[in-house]
Order: sequence, then C-alpha cells, then structure tokens
Amino acid sequence: MSRYEQFQQYRTKMNRRILGDDAERGTRPDGSPALGGTLVTRRFFTLDGKTYEDGALTAKTKELLGLVASMVLRCDDCIAYHVDQAVQAGASDEELWETFDVALIVGGSIVIPHLRRAVEFLDECRGRPA
Amino acid sequence: MSRYEQFQQYRTKMNRRILGDDAERGTRPDGSPALGGTLVTRRFFTLDGKTYEDGALTAKTKELLGLVASMVLRCDDCIAYHVDQAVQAGASDEELWETFDVALIVGGSIVIPHLRRAVEFLDECRGRPA
Amino acid sequence: MSRYEQFQQYRTKMNRRILGDDAERGTRPDGSPALGGTLVTRRFFTLDGKTYEDGALTAKTKELLGLVASMVLRCDDCIAYHVDQAVQAGASDEELWETFDVALIVGGSIVIPHLRRAVEFLDECRGRPA
Amino acid sequence: MSRYEQFQQYRTKMNRRILGDDAERGTRPDGSPALGGTLVTRRFFTLDGKTYEDGALTAKTKELLGLVASMVLRCDDCIAYHVDQAVQAGASDEELWETFDVALIVGGSIVIPHLRRAVEFLDECRGRPA
Amino acid sequence: MSRYEQFQQYRTKMNRRILGDDAERGTRPDGSPALGGTLVTRRFFTLDGKTYEDGALTAKTKELLGLVASMVLRCDDCIAYHVDQAVQAGASDEELWETFDVALIVGGSIVIPHLRRAVEFLDECRGRPA
Amino acid sequence: MSRYEQFQQYRTKMNRRILGDDAERGTRPDGSPALGGTLVTRRFFTLDGKTYEDGALTAKTKELLGLVASMVLRCDDCIAYHVDQAVQAGASDEELWETFDVALIVGGSIVIPHLRRAVEFLDECRGRPA
Repeated sequence: MSRYEQFQQYRTKMNRRILGDDAERGTRPDGSPALGGTLVTRRFFTLDGKTYEDGALTAKTKELLGLVASMVLRCDDCIAYHVDQAVQAGASDEELWETFDVALIVGGSIVIPHLRRAVEFLDECRGRPA
Repeated sequence: MSRYEQFQQYRTKMNRRILGDDAERGTRPDGSPALGGTLVTRRFFTLDGKTYEDGALTAKTKELLGLVASMVLRCDDCIAYHVDQAVQAGASDEELWETFDVALIVGGSIVIPHLRRAVEFLDECRGRPA
Repeated sequence: MSRYEQFQQYRTKMNRRILGDDAERGTRPDGSPALGGTLVTRRFFTLDGKTYEDGALTAKTKELLGLVASMVLRCDDCIAYHVDQAVQAGASDEELWETFDVALIVGGSIVIPHLRRAVEFLDECRGRPA
Repeated sequence: MSRYEQFQQYRTKMNRRILGDDAERGTRPDGSPALGGTLVTRRFFTLDGKTYEDGALTAKTKELLGLVASMVLRCDDCIAYHVDQAVQAGASDEELWETFDVALIVGGSIVIPHLRRAVEFLDECRGRPA
Repeated sequence: MSRYEQFQQYRTKMNRRILGDDAERGTRPDGSPALGGTLVTRRFFTLDGKTYEDGALTAKTKELLGLVASMVLRCDDCIAYHVDQAVQAGASDEELWETFDVALIVGGSIVIPHLRRAVEFLDECRGRPA
Repeated sequence: MSRYEQFQQYRTKMNRRILGDDAERGTRPDGSPALGGTLVTRRFFTLDGKTYEDGALTAKTKELLGLVASMVLRCDDCIAYHVDQAVQAGASDEELWETFDVALIVGGSIVIPHLRRAVEFLDECRGRPA
C-alpha cells in the first residue's frame, strides 16, 4: 500500500473512532460504547473544516496557508493532508514549490526532511512513479 | 507485535543502553564497554522520575500534566508514555479526553495527528480491540 | 502600573477590538467600522473558554493543564492568564510549584526565563510585594 | 513613538550593524571595524528577500504565507514585518483576518496573544487610531 | 537494511528528486520533466552545506552545533545526519555524549525519545552491534 | 540602565526568589515565608550549571552549544545568558558569528529578530557603543 493510501486509511479509521457514533467506537469492558471525542473535540474538528472554505481568500490559497504552517511546525501528516487538499483545489506544482520555499526560508534546514517527504507525497498525489 | 509492546520493548532496551552497567552497553573496538550516559544524563533521568511522584498534586494529575505538555510539544513517544502512566495511576477515559481537549485547544489542529495516535494507544492500554 | 494590571488592561482592550461590536472597533477611512474577528475567530474564542469549565476534571486542574502547556510552549501572556485563572480557581502555591516543575522537566532550561516571570506574576496575583 | 515606528527603526539600525559596511558597524577596542555578518549571513538575508518576489504566486500571497508561518511559530517581529509587507502588497483586511484564522486554528490558543499584537500593528499600518 | 542504510538511501534518492537534472526527476503526464526545486531551494541547499565548512570553528564543532540544534528542535533525520557528519569529522563518543547532555538540559525530557534514537544511530555509525 | 544590566539584575533577583533562603523570598499573608522552588526545581538548576563545566568539550564550546540551542528555540534571555558566558569563556567574535550562522541556517528566518538582539547584546558585553 502506498504512503498515500496508508495515510488516508488511518486518518479515516481514527476520525471514525474519535467522531463516529456508538457502533463505530468499539466497546468498554462492560459492553457500553468506548468514549469518543467530547463536545469540545467535535466542535474543534468542525471549526477546522470551516476555516478552509472559500472566502476573501480562495480555498486553494487557504490550503497553501495551511501547508506552510504545517511545514514550519514540522507535522508530516498535516503536510500530507494539505498537499492533498491543495492539489484537489487546483494548486500547480509551481505554486506548491514556491510554498515549500517560504517554509524552507522561514523554518530553516530543519524543514528539509519534511520537504523530502512532502515532495514524495505530492508525486503520489499526482500519480507520478516514485 | 502491538504498538504498545514495541514501544515498551524499545524503551527498555535503549534505557539499558543509556543507563545500564558495562555488560548492558556492548563494547568498543578495543573491547572496553561502549560509553553510556554521563553523570548529567543519569541525574536528569532520576530527576525526571522524581517529578511525577505524589505531592501536593497526585501522581495521576501530574501524569495528565506530563501528557498535555507532551501533546502540545507533539512527541508521540512521550504521549504514549504518559497515557500509559496516567492509566496505571487510575485516570478515567473521561479525564483523558478532557486532557486531550486542553492540548487540542492550546496547541491547535497540528495536535490532531498526535491525538489520533494517542487514542489508538489508549485503546491498546485498555485492551480494547482496534 | 503593575505587570498584572498592564496585562489585564491590554487583554481587555484587544479582546474588545477583536470580538466587540461596531462601536468598539474604531472606523475605516470611509467611516465604516473596522473589521473584527470572523465567525471562525469568534467561535474559536468561545470554544477556548468552554474547554476550561468543570467536567470530569475540575476547572482548577484544567487551568493547571493550560498552565503547563503554556509554559512548555513558552508564551508569557498565556502563562500569566492561566496563573491568574488557577489562583482564582483555588490552586495553592504548592500545587503551582509542582506544575512549574513538570514544565521545567518536560521543557528544559529554556523554560527558566518564563518560570522567573511566572513566579513574579504569581506574587502579584497573591498581592505579595515584589 | 508608535510600535510601528520603533519596529522599523530598530530593524533598520540592526540590519545596518549586521549587513552594513565598516563605517556602519562601530569599532573594536583596537580601532578596527567590529565584525558583521559572514558571507553565509549575508547570503541568507539576500535569499530571504528573494523568496517573496512575484512568481507563480503573487508577492501578496507569499507575504500571507510568511505571515501565517510567523504566527504559528509565534515571532512578533516576524508577524509585524509580514503584516506590513502584506498591506503594502495590497492585502485587504478581509484577507488578513482569514490568514489570522488559519494561524489560530493550526496553531491553537497559544497564538491568541500574538493575534492581539498583530491586530494592533495592522491598525497602526492602516493609520487607524488605537 | 539497517536504519543507517535506509536513512542514507532515502536522503540520496530525494535529494536527487529535488536538486537533480531532468532525467533524475521523473516526468509529468505530458512527458515533460517533473518540477524540481526552484532557484531559492537550490541556493538554500548550497548555503546549508557551506555553513558547516572549517572556519574560526572547526567542521567538527560546527557539526556538534548542528546536532544540538537538531536535538532541541527534535528532528530525527537531522539528528542522524549530524551524528554521522560529526563522527566523520572525528568527534569522540565522549564529545557526543556531552553534546547530548546540553540538548537534554536545554530541551528537557521531551528530547529523551530522540536521544534514544540518536544513541542507536551512533552505534550503527560506529559499527557496534545493536 | 543598559539591557545588559537589566538582564543581570532581574535574573539575580528572581533566582534569589526561586532558590534563596526564607529571608530572600518575602512572606505569605500569615507571615510565613513565601514558597520557593521545590527540591526538583533546585536540583534542576544545579544540574543545569553542571552541564556547562569543562569536560571532553571545553566550557567555551559548551556555551556555544547552549547558545545555538537557545537561538533555534528563540529564547532571548537564554541567548543573552549564553552570549555572556561564551564571551567570559573566551569566545571570539568570529566564533560567535559562525555559531549565529548555524542557528540561522538550521532555524531559518524566524531566528533573525533574535539574531539582531543577540548582536546588540554582544556589543554591550564587549563594551562597544551601540
């Protein structure tokens, strides 16, 4: 399974565990459903989704903003998510590389290992052979 | 092997390598024991353990403090360690989810991938099927 | 004016600027009210407040969680806020020092300058002369 | 002097100290010019400037990328710099608030004190009374 | 394959993808070469290499500086890279452990999982059995 | 008062408040001495001091390691402290600028505002007019 598929599958499974209904969360020893996210958790996830909707800035630009923030904070899964979303919103490779550059200059060489994985993930999103 | 078992096994092996006696550290080319942690390293590990003992705050509360700190600093192994310790100190799922929420709100969406792995690890600690 | 008063005054003024009604936000060159926080901004602030309400964990414990998270992320204003809230929720000096210790051990010596300012701020909250 | 003026003045003075010619750097005890930035330092500053030039993404979008990166890394001077540059590149208040929102959601409540100062600085850039 | 070999192989492959010529970067759907790093990306990589050359400080000391920075920023690949470079520049185990200690004290217990992996990687660099 | 003097004075005052004897810590409302650092706090401060003593690496090199770690973690007071200690341990301006460069390249442009203040502080340590 490609890293792209692994990422999507794990993300889907765990989001169901956190946000899903009783049947999706497994059971406690006494048979009651395992606890999932609280009202705060659920509202945060909803608000997170809302943040990237079209507004004064397009969804594409907002995904690039989310991407650069994820790169300087060095979270590979967040980078993968925003690369995927940016590609779906129509970002070109040129636009993605310029976004990578801002992350690299602001965040420094510590960003490089994450850049490598971002490029590899982008190639998978584009269906380019590794 | 579950992620829980892998985590415990690697941690034990490497702590022995760092803090163990000569026989536990392997050898240098000349047959002398490989160098392990210095006096500073060893004292830091001891002090680290001492920090979470019962005091004005209970060990359970201190483990939740260690957990929230590990989540906002986004260190999966530290999160796993404090989830395990909090569970052993008697923390309920309700208490753990409210701790996760503080981490999520203070640290933002960048915490989400670590939350997913924390929940998965918690389920393993509780012996709940994935 | 003490650092405690400065902190409260600036926080109140700017929260009004961000979350307040038209009259509280000043005007644009054309006389229309200056833009304040969006719906996302406002919801985030509301959710932030909700996170620290009594639940399975008491408000006091949650404030200590917010405090340790703020210390390891090294945000002086966030530290001041949670010290103040923890004191109001009944946290003792003993409990605060043990929280400081978790931050110091998890976050390292980089936390020390923030610890100094946290202690100074705590003394102001308690009305102890500097 | 406003925070805007202080910021610009200190930045100019210290950039001269770091990148300037002999006369701009003061002297050592023996009368020779004080040491300034190395070739690496100077090249980094040049590269930093080049990163935000118009390309596949406009300079305005790149400044918003630099802004969101600075907010989640919580550097007030970097935030001030990119707010100023974004305003000069034509960013509207609506676009700036949506950028603030991405920073707030990705980076969490720890970003709030920096958001307050960003808004205050933006008002100074726009010439709006505090 | 050892972690040491995996690290070197992936690093080489992706650096070629980012910095290589057309033939090394694969193709776009239309047959043209996939986009690689921009001029900014390439210059940053060059500058990064230049930073660790002998100067007033030896290359060995600079690699230890790069190592301690990578440890407190908690980037395993960066740590692996600088451990390898420091070993090649002649750093002794004693010097490496004292560098680890500075990272541990400045960065706190959050550094410990990275210390474990650094020690394991160092043993692989030295050809010591795990 | 120069920033150098302010820094030293505040540091001394608050270290006395944290680590001092009863008379140095002020009083609680009931007349008993205010609480100071716990045993864990005190041991951490002692261990911190011990880390920078001469060993396989000289105290000067260790101070440069502490400096680069403080710069990439972007703590101005920690930077000031290690610049001062490095100067006292005999570090030359050339060595300090090369250390600044490693911090700048590893940590990125977000380090620049801290570099400006580090250079200003270094000039004060050297007694060079601003």
